Amino acid sequence: MRSFTFYERFSRAFHDYPSLSKLIIISTVSGGGLIAYSEANASSDAYKAAPMETGIKKKKVVVLGTGWAGTSFLKSLNNPSYDVQVISPRNYFAFTPLLPSVTCGTVEARSIVEPVRNIVRKKNVDVSFWEAECFKIDAQNKKVYCRSNQNTSVNGNKEFAVDYDYLVIAMGARPNTFNTPGVEENCHFLKVIFLASPVGSCLAVSLCTYYFPNCKTASSLEDAQRIRRTVIDSFEKASLPDLSDEERKRILHFVVVGGGPTGVEFAAELHDFVTEDLVKLYPMVKESVKITLLEAADHILNMFDQRITVFAEDKFQRDGIDVKLGSMVVKVTDKEISTKVRGNGETNSMPYGMVVWSTGIGTRPIVKDFMKQIGQTNRRALATDEWLRVEGCDNVYALGDCATINQRRVMEDIAAIFSKADKDNSGTLTVKEFQEVIKDICERYPQMELYLKNKKMGNIADMLKEAKGDVAKEAIELNIEEFKKALSEVDTQMKNLPATAQVAAQQGVYLAKCFNRMEECERNPEGPLRFRGSGRHRFQPFRYKHLGQFAPLGGEQTAAQLPGDWVSIGQSSQWLWYSVYASKLVSWRTRTLVITDWMRRFVFGRDSSGI
Amino acid sequence: MRSFTFYERFSRAFHDYPSLSKLIIISTVSGGGLIAYSEANASSDAYKAAPMETGIKKKKVVVLGTGWAGTSFLKSLNNPSYDVQVISPRNYFAFTPLLPSVTCGTVEARSIVEPVRNIVRKKNVDVSFWEAECFKIDAQNKKVYCRSNQNTSVNGNKEFAVDYDYLVIAMGARPNTFNTPGVEENCHFLKVIFLASPVGSCLAVSLCTYYFPNCKTASSLEDAQRIRRTVIDSFEKASLPDLSDEERKRILHFVVVGGGPTGVEFAAELHDFVTEDLVKLYPMVKESVKITLLEAADHILNMFDQRITVFAEDKFQRDGIDVKLGSMVVKVTDKEISTKVRGNGETNSMPYGMVVWSTGIGTRPIVKDFMKQIGQTNRRALATDEWLRVEGCDNVYALGDCATINQRRVMEDIAAIFSKADKDNSGTLTVKEFQEVIKDICERYPQMELYLKNKKMGNIADMLKEAKGDVAKEAIELNIEEFKKALSEVDTQMKNLPATAQVAAQQGVYLAKCFNRMEECERNPEGPLRFRGSGRHRFQPFRYKHLGQFAPLGGEQTAAQLPGDWVSIGQSSQWLWYSVYASKLVSWRTRTLVITDWMRRFVFGRDSSGI
Repeated sequence: MRSFTFYERFSRAFHDYPSLSKLIIISTVSGGGLIAYSEANASSDAYKAAPMETGIKKKKVVVLGTGWAGTSFLKSLNNPSYDVQVISPRNYFAFTPLLPSVTCGTVEARSIVEPVRNIVRKKNVDVSFWEAECFKIDAQNKKVYCRSNQNTSVNGNKEFAVDYDYLVIAMGARPNTFNTPGVEENCHFLKVIFLASPVGSCLAVSLCTYYFPNCKTASSLEDAQRIRRTVIDSFEKASLPDLSDEERKRILHFVVVGGGPTGVEFAAELHDFVTEDLVKLYPMVKESVKITLLEAADHILNMFDQRITVFAEDKFQRDGIDVKLGSMVVKVTDKEISTKVRGNGETNSMPYGMVVWSTGIGTRPIVKDFMKQIGQTNRRALATDEWLRVEGCDNVYALGDCATINQRRVMEDIAAIFSKADKDNSGTLTVKEFQEVIKDICERYPQMELYLKNKKMGNIADMLKEAKGDVAKEAIELNIEEFKKALSEVDTQMKNLPATAQVAAQQGVYLAKCFNRMEECERNPEGPLRFRGSGRHRFQPFRYKHLGQFAPLGGEQTAAQLPGDWVSIGQSSQWLWYSVYASKLVSWRTRTLVITDWMRRFVFGRDSSGI
Repeated sequence: MRSFTFYERFSRAFHDYPSLSKLIIISTVSGGGLIAYSEANASSDAYKAAPMETGIKKKKVVVLGTGWAGTSFLKSLNNPSYDVQVISPRNYFAFTPLLPSVTCGTVEARSIVEPVRNIVRKKNVDVSFWEAECFKIDAQNKKVYCRSNQNTSVNGNKEFAVDYDYLVIAMGARPNTFNTPGVEENCHFLKVIFLASPVGSCLAVSLCTYYFPNCKTASSLEDAQRIRRTVIDSFEKASLPDLSDEERKRILHFVVVGGGPTGVEFAAELHDFVTEDLVKLYPMVKESVKITLLEAADHILNMFDQRITVFAEDKFQRDGIDVKLGSMVVKVTDKEISTKVRGNGETNSMPYGMVVWSTGIGTRPIVKDFMKQIGQTNRRALATDEWLRVEGCDNVYALGDCATINQRRVMEDIAAIFSKADKDNSGTLTVKEFQEVIKDICERYPQMELYLKNKKMGNIADMLKEAKGDVAKEAIELNIEEFKKALSEVDTQMKNLPATAQVAAQQGVYLAKCFNRMEECERNPEGPLRFRGSGRHRFQPFRYKHLGQFAPLGGEQTAAQLPGDWVSIGQSSQWLWYSVYASKLVSWRTRTLVITDWMRRFVFGRDSSGI
């Protein structure tokens, strides 16, 4: 009897008790109907309910920040097995490359922002958003502590803690004053706050037109709006009666510190705003306006091709913008800015009305705290490995301006590479053996690929030959010392990525793709060989693809430097700039808004009301 | 020799020294050419230079405020013999009827403002603008004291004094808290700041479509923007984790105090914003949202026709907006608002997240100071006569919300009227004698015209007949006592003008027209008879023409009450509202901006980013 299967018992019962059979049919049909009904109703909650029923708990991903890095991560994440919580003090993403335009009212602040909730609401992934500031990261207990930052409300701040399984830190940076006295108190900032592409999926479609130039020092929206108001206030103030000529000139002296793309774009926009719009309304003060651009290096736009630098310097000279090269700011008081001239060390002071500071980025206090906690001191940003994982922490990722990738040196791992390549353990490496691992080496150490490219070595054998002397290629064998010598120059090719939106956006998309295929790649790793361990890395490491850079110079003139050293300067680049930016805006809404803003500006000029 | 005239000497010299003649001809011709050249170049300064040359000094007109009253005055002023100086803490005019739309992001703040310098720059009148706050009026010495209010600048405030020959006070009012405890600290205000039509000349063209409904309590632009941010912040705050249901409900309880057109429009806009846009982004909190409208009187919109009131109350009930009538706010703490129910005196408290206060207007401190200075105490606003001249002051005018017209009573002047009308000094007035002055009486005392209209008396004789009994009309004669009796009811028809943009705008245009024709009317006065003096008044007194009012109720429904008790409610009124407002905007620029804002809203909804 015991061996009766369930089916046998069932069929016997069915035969023995005919009324039972009816009951079963009825309950099956009605039950099925009920199930079908409840499923139809629950479909919208399907993702949420599914893991509970199947017993799989969703992994909690906490994302800090909704700049380029955070937003592009969110847009590209499409694996419903995560429960995502986003924490940011601002409930919107801002398209920072257009911030310099906001400072002069060419584009409205509202036009370049998209609410985060709008970006994530149609996703198949559960995303919650908390408008709050994270003030502490506890990596030990996998918690972040947050505080609602709504000081417009009459109620006190509210604190809460959020658990995570994975933490994505994308909080950006703050402006770097280099501890110059008086800067924090007296200057306006064009600084970085947001860091990662919102264009997510469309990024893949049209990568070739994806340029985000000035995000290195793009400002927060509030800063940009404040700069706009201050410019107009300066003109109002200079128009007041009973002012001496000297005082009027002081008030209308605008100083831009930093000759990078943002500082240059701001100076150019300001010049256009003044000459195209403000002089009509303030004709009595137009003679007193002066714009000065201070740059500590020998040239402005020094990360660009020399042709662009020369063109920009010439154009600014024609426009009457006073470019002072080799001038380092040493002090700012409420009415004067002091600079030291490089070379002769001479110190100059000049009276000013407004200073806009746009030189490099510094570390946010909370990131600094976290770095101390995990033993990363004396660094500018969180160090991560090539997979964007924070060093010394489990399941914490950092991207955008708050992080730098700590690229591993070939020379650190040279012994491991050698022994991995030396399959027959002969103590020497043949060309053939080396060729078998060169792909993995190039993947793992991008400086290797660059080195080969720069040395124009098509074949790895050439490299070994150089180290060994002129012997028949196939027959070359190297011992460990010779191998070290062959690769000794490779690490000079390492370079840090710039702190731009372009980098942040690509990192966001990269990390989302890793998260999307986490389980799959756990099973079938697709990264390069682990030289110091066994097997392969789960993913390909992050690789930045530079797509070029724009530098708007005012007067409908823009300089563009595209990959392959292709340089274009003039009105055609301006139109390229317009079309690239319009196409890369985060949504159809912002796209329409920005384009109508541009049209409004063409027709009516920029607005000069002080709001 | 001494009697030689200049001409004789000149002709002698001409004959004696032929070479001199050549010199003179050359210098005359070239001098003329120089003069002609310099004149051609100086044409733009012609107005400025002319009075200096002719010895006529331009009269200095100082205008305080750039709201509806001030701006419409500036737009309509076209007599180049004035030197106008405008002083306002804001360098723009705001189209206040659209402020409730700004509170919910239906229209952008930037779209409804026009820089004052733009408005005045193409005028033939010299207009200077100072962005400063007037903090003291010295009517004795004809000076105003001002202070630059730019706190964005690092430099201290700058004070200066401005002389005037004529002063135009158009500074508006501030919100009235009725000294309710806690209101100033805890409430947002939808209040009046600006007061007078910017539509100036176009006003005359299309008066029939000129409606400005809600300006009575329209808010300053900054307030409107702050309200918008607070609404979105409330939703963000309510979405935070770890909140009790009770706390969430409190945060999302929006209380509007004041059932006038502004309060009603704001409540309706807020309801639309929540149901059309925010619930999509914050689905988890939508059940907790509540809007309460508190009104101390028996009905909302009580200045409107009863049909509109009933419709609005019904619509709000259907929409779920809780309208509490007869509720007076007695106290506001940081989380609770207490009301007293009229009638039973019962006190209720309810928790709230945000209170918007929109009940009536109060006096600005500087206006209060000035009133004290000129002996006008215990009043809500500056008292003026019917020509908008401030009582007790020479050459000072006040208009808009900071002023009320102190209409003279017929009964005050009854003896003077009688003796003026009694041309033959017979001690009695015949109908014929009375008819000769009735036009002047109606002009001077508008209540008279209203009285006749309301009593439906086509002929003045009917009035006298009523006082005298049924005698043959022409033969009626009244003595002073009978005349007093006949006119005893007239003054009951007097009413104060509402503090709306419509009134302020009409006053601005009226005053500008007076200024334009000041000299002309000095010579040929065109006003009514001076009953207490001799001759005529220079100008017709100001007469307000009510052109109707709108009350937007949300959901594309608007109520309109047009002159002649014509009432229209529904979507057609909404379209009338759109077209009237679009047509009345201050410039083609703002018109285009607002219309594109509306289109953007139709297509993309309102923006919910917290900037």
